[in-house]
Amino acid sequence: MKYCVKISYDGSKFYGFQRQKDKITVQGELEKALGIINKGMVEIKGAGRTDVGVHAYGQVVHFNLDFDIPPERLKEALASIVRPYIDILECKQVDSSFHARFSVKSKEYVYKIWRGNYDPCKYSYYLMYDKDLNVDKLRECAEVFKGKHNFHNFVSGFRDNYNGEIFNIEVVEENETVLLVFKGKSFYRYMVRNIVGAMLSYNEGKVNLETIQKMVNDSDFNYQLPTALANGLYLSKINYD
Amino acid sequence: MKYCVKISYDGSKFYGFQRQKDKITVQGELEKALGIINKGMVEIKGAGRTDVGVHAYGQVVHFNLDFDIPPERLKEALASIVRPYIDILECKQVDSSFHARFSVKSKEYVYKIWRGNYDPCKYSYYLMYDKDLNVDKLRECAEVFKGKHNFHNFVSGFRDNYNGEIFNIEVVEENETVLLVFKGKSFYRYMVRNIVGAMLSYNEGKVNLETIQKMVNDSDFNYQLPTALANGLYLSKINYD
Repeated sequence: MKYCVKISYDGSKFYGFQRQKDKITVQGELEKALGIINKGMVEIKGAGRTDVGVHAYGQVVHFNLDFDIPPERLKEALASIVRPYIDILECKQVDSSFHARFSVKSKEYVYKIWRGNYDPCKYSYYLMYDKDLNVDKLRECAEVFKGKHNFHNFVSGFRDNYNGEIFNIEVVEENETVLLVFKGKSFYRYMVRNIVGAMLSYNEGKVNLETIQKMVNDSDFNYQLPTALANGLYLSKINYD
Repeated sequence: MKYCVKISYDGSKFYGFQRQKDKITVQGELEKALGIINKGMVEIKGAGRTDVGVHAYGQVVHFNLDFDIPPERLKEALASIVRPYIDILECKQVDSSFHARFSVKSKEYVYKIWRGNYDPCKYSYYLMYDKDLNVDKLRECAEVFKGKHNFHNFVSGFRDNYNGEIFNIEVVEENETVLLVFKGKSFYRYMVRNIVGAMLSYNEGKVNLETIQKMVNDSDFNYQLPTALANGLYLSKINYD
């Protein structure tokens, strides 16, 4: 039987999502737990990898079990093994055609910035930002990234193509927190963190809007800006049909 | 010159406050940083030890340096070394008679309970509580602990005397959070966590108020209730004259 589960995790407790020999990863812990339940090896596929330090409250994975188990019972059995730093939010049986990664229609990420006083207990869960944060400038810069672009200046590593589409970047103020909410079709490695890095560079007057516009529109123009820390990033939602 | 600094820390990142060989502790990290600044060993004294997993945003320590440095500069130099999981909130020069522990007049602790949905990113900073929480019962139980008592049933380890005084235990509701705010003259090892454990046992109907009353009033009556997890506990304030 094929199952799909929605999970949340504290990314500061793992060496990223992807299984690695001798390292504690989200995939590794889930596969270990499923191996106990299934009494035999289980391989999972995730909607997308998250890097070291990146959190999730809407990651989706699929896998096959050798037998039939009610989703509600599987959810509880799994949660009891993978907690405290991973939780199982939803569990359902899916059609054999479902694929956690290939069936994705769009994704959402949230980047959390803390503009209050420095707080060691929040360090792993926010970007601690001690400079002035002008949300109007962030919104102005966000506009540049919306739509279809060649994101080669914002992606780490080599790919066949860097074309992507961002539907929306919303800037939400909530007391000491500023949330950057990303919705889009495809996010490649470091892409959200590099876009946040560009938005913050613009906020700090270290780059002008024309340069950022050129970075996303001119595929011959190579330019790098700082990458924002992983700590503030959350994979928040995966949308399927 | 004698200095006193107020610090905050994420207790989940340390093996407690007290220095230990080959373990990362709050005292150990502060002494290492001060040793660099002082160019020679510095020993600190804290207002009180905190156990593994217990956080602080109002711990106080004192120490001597071999030379005179403006407190504001010392604060910045220290913070730049001990961050991200320790922060320096205040720094001042003090009279040679000041002692971070012996000069304490009273202390405050906060215990944070999370009654919302389970959240792996909050696990280290709250008690995740999935049972019904009746704040009226918590307040009723809190009354039993106020005043001068023999707290032997709520203290771990042997002491000459277990007499203490709790000025107040406030129960504060804030959305998904319930805060238990303790103010008192002396808090011994595990005392706050054991009182919280008793309050939660009463909330769950596992013990009646008469038994708890007997536990704090009858020094011949020995009775144990569960100790609440360290994760939710914060040393929040040290009061001096």
